[in-house]
Amino acid sequence: MSDATDEEGDGDAAAGAGTGAVAGPRRPVVRLKPKAGRRLAAGSPWVYADELALDRRTKALPPGTVATLENAERRPLATVGVTPGSTIAARVLDADPDAEIDVAWFAARLRAALALRAPLYDAPYHRLVHAEGDAMPGCVIDRFGDAVAIQPNAAWVDQRLAALLAALDETIAPKVVVLNAGSRARALEGLEGETRLLRGALDGPIPTPMNGATYMADLMGGQKTGLFYDQRPNHAFVARLARGADMLDVFAHVGGFSLAALAAGAASALAVDGSAPALALAEQGARASGFADRFAVEKADAFDALRRLAGEGRRFGVVVCDPPAFAPNRAAVEAGARAYEKTARLGAAVTAPGGFLTLCSCSHAVDLERFRAACAAGLRAAGREAALIRSGGAGPDHPAHPALAETGYLKALTFRLL
Amino acid sequence: MSDATDEEGDGDAAAGAGTGAVAGPRRPVVRLKPKAGRRLAAGSPWVYADELALDRRTKALPPGTVATLENAERRPLATVGVTPGSTIAARVLDADPDAEIDVAWFAARLRAALALRAPLYDAPYHRLVHAEGDAMPGCVIDRFGDAVAIQPNAAWVDQRLAALLAALDETIAPKVVVLNAGSRARALEGLEGETRLLRGALDGPIPTPMNGATYMADLMGGQKTGLFYDQRPNHAFVARLARGADMLDVFAHVGGFSLAALAAGAASALAVDGSAPALALAEQGARASGFADRFAVEKADAFDALRRLAGEGRRFGVVVCDPPAFAPNRAAVEAGARAYEKTARLGAAVTAPGGFLTLCSCSHAVDLERFRAACAAGLRAAGREAALIRSGGAGPDHPAHPALAETGYLKALTFRLL
Repeated sequence: MSDATDEEGDGDAAAGAGTGAVAGPRRPVVRLKPKAGRRLAAGSPWVYADELALDRRTKALPPGTVATLENAERRPLATVGVTPGSTIAARVLDADPDAEIDVAWFAARLRAALALRAPLYDAPYHRLVHAEGDAMPGCVIDRFGDAVAIQPNAAWVDQRLAALLAALDETIAPKVVVLNAGSRARALEGLEGETRLLRGALDGPIPTPMNGATYMADLMGGQKTGLFYDQRPNHAFVARLARGADMLDVFAHVGGFSLAALAAGAASALAVDGSAPALALAEQGARASGFADRFAVEKADAFDALRRLAGEGRRFGVVVCDPPAFAPNRAAVEAGARAYEKTARLGAAVTAPGGFLTLCSCSHAVDLERFRAACAAGLRAAGREAALIRSGGAGPDHPAHPALAETGYLKALTFRLL
Repeated sequence: MSDATDEEGDGDAAAGAGTGAVAGPRRPVVRLKPKAGRRLAAGSPWVYADELALDRRTKALPPGTVATLENAERRPLATVGVTPGSTIAARVLDADPDAEIDVAWFAARLRAALALRAPLYDAPYHRLVHAEGDAMPGCVIDRFGDAVAIQPNAAWVDQRLAALLAALDETIAPKVVVLNAGSRARALEGLEGETRLLRGALDGPIPTPMNGATYMADLMGGQKTGLFYDQRPNHAFVARLARGADMLDVFAHVGGFSLAALAAGAASALAVDGSAPALALAEQGARASGFADRFAVEKADAFDALRRLAGEGRRFGVVVCDPPAFAPNRAAVEAGARAYEKTARLGAAVTAPGGFLTLCSCSHAVDLERFRAACAAGLRAAGREAALIRSGGAGPDHPAHPALAETGYLKALTFRLL
């Protein structure tokens, strides 16, 4: 009986909720094409546009619609968030095809995310929700003590900010909430927006403790001056190597590597970056940490600075190059690999004999093997013998969905040079 | 003039040293085939048998001969150790084609190796020399305080143990020296032997501090009961997760993961292994560390034990499976991947909701991507949603030669299961 009712209901389910059916409002249904869904069966949380039966009513769904995903044989598979015009047309929100995406749902997800971080961090400064890795596709939340910064990078969550905020109140009750709506990922979902305060007030950057240093996180300044938690374990490793050494931090941003190195006892650190606001925050962090006297900054093009320092005969015991993504997409892989090779070559030229050179990539498209090869080629071009002593990735507050290997975007390779 | 003399000398160089040439004893020369040496030019320290001109005199060189490597145009390239009958026919020992491989050479290599470890370890318990990664191809040395265990896995070093020992005396003056000559790698070089004391005396396993626990390293017992330093950072990471949890350590060996977890405050640990001697050392370590009351061992087949525990409804907050290499060579990759998948499935079945499962592979032939896919498949087969929170490798006392990607053999993936 109930099966029959369900079958009947399907016919106009996509017409939207509240159609007056006896069983109450039904929600939209979207369907896989026949034989599509291999990726889904293999565990992927993404349904691509070419896998979905994009009939007229599905195409007409407003971006962000929560729907039940069925296979071509009308078997319910999961609850999804749908953005018909996006390459990723649907994202699995819950394995339960009838899950309600409400405050209780968000709160349960947040509690699971908090439970993961509890044994790992002794203070509430970390990424709190890492999208698919925390079963909240496209949703990123960073925590800075009493403040959170939310990136709703998929339409389903962008439309449910009120429920998400209520769930945050149930769990961590943040005093300050920043909506960071300026990311490139949002554009792919047809979303716009800018960074703005949703709650509370900020009178400047937030002092953020990490690896013994105090960083300054300017949540309102966007990409250029925010704080990235992903490199934390790599900061910690490099810091151990830097004790007593002079260190050079290229593409330094707000001083991620250099402040950790100074906290661990580096003799000096020079931070080079093209962004004056980022360097100002790095300097502010060094003052707040109490080691401004060992810290210097230089606003410059990274490659120019590396060439100049090499020409002046400057050599550092510890060098880090953490550039922006040189290969932001697959088309840019070749050019990106060459840029990483050049970075390695120029970085090696200012690394002292016996010193350590850490080379980073946050390009999804350049995988670990490719990046390692580019670095090795650069070291050879510099005429330096080297050994790879560590391959680091993003910290454990950036969990990866097992089916999305490319979420392992961050690579930090530390070489010891002879 | 000197060029001409060199040319002349080449003719009978391979006849061996001490031929009475005016310039003094000349050493053998080996040559690349025409157009061979692409790998070498790309930085590889290995020359394969099919790249070398294996003429009669080269074939007749005694295994372990130190020679000058030339290209087909007779340009000297490097100093190599030659083993004519081996797949790796020559190993680059020094970029200087005229380097003397004597006590001073070994001492310089050891000092470079010590300098790398100095900032990383506060006690002399670590791998001291990691073969190609420390520019001593085929030579592995582990340090346990006043004792060292040497694995001379290539003929060139096997024949120069006296010089190596003298160099060890110059640098760290070990009181105990164990020769571990039973490895599989030695067989490939045509070397035989067994484990024996070269110096000093051992009255039992050596207490070895690591991650807050005391491990028992039985240097005379070989593979089964020795201590592997490579997992140290992975032990440390899992230990943080295990605070207050019940942990299960499968393929526990001498208790690598479980003792670290107990030191970090795990409520209990159960170590399962098929080797009674290894488990006895684990128990001895737990007693020496002062937490024997929280530690239990079970001698059993790992898969049998996992099935039994699952059947009994036992669930652990932290589970580790660190099996021996399931794919010891390329032919075994498929079977190996299936075994890793099975391990993941059975391990997931005893991991509590919200708990952590760490899966390890030390198979060269199964690369990271392949291993991650096998683990993901096993987790799906177990019906568990999971997120990958960390991909770990060997510790920095196991540096890798940049051109030998496969030296990144160790993979330790930590998943959080819902």
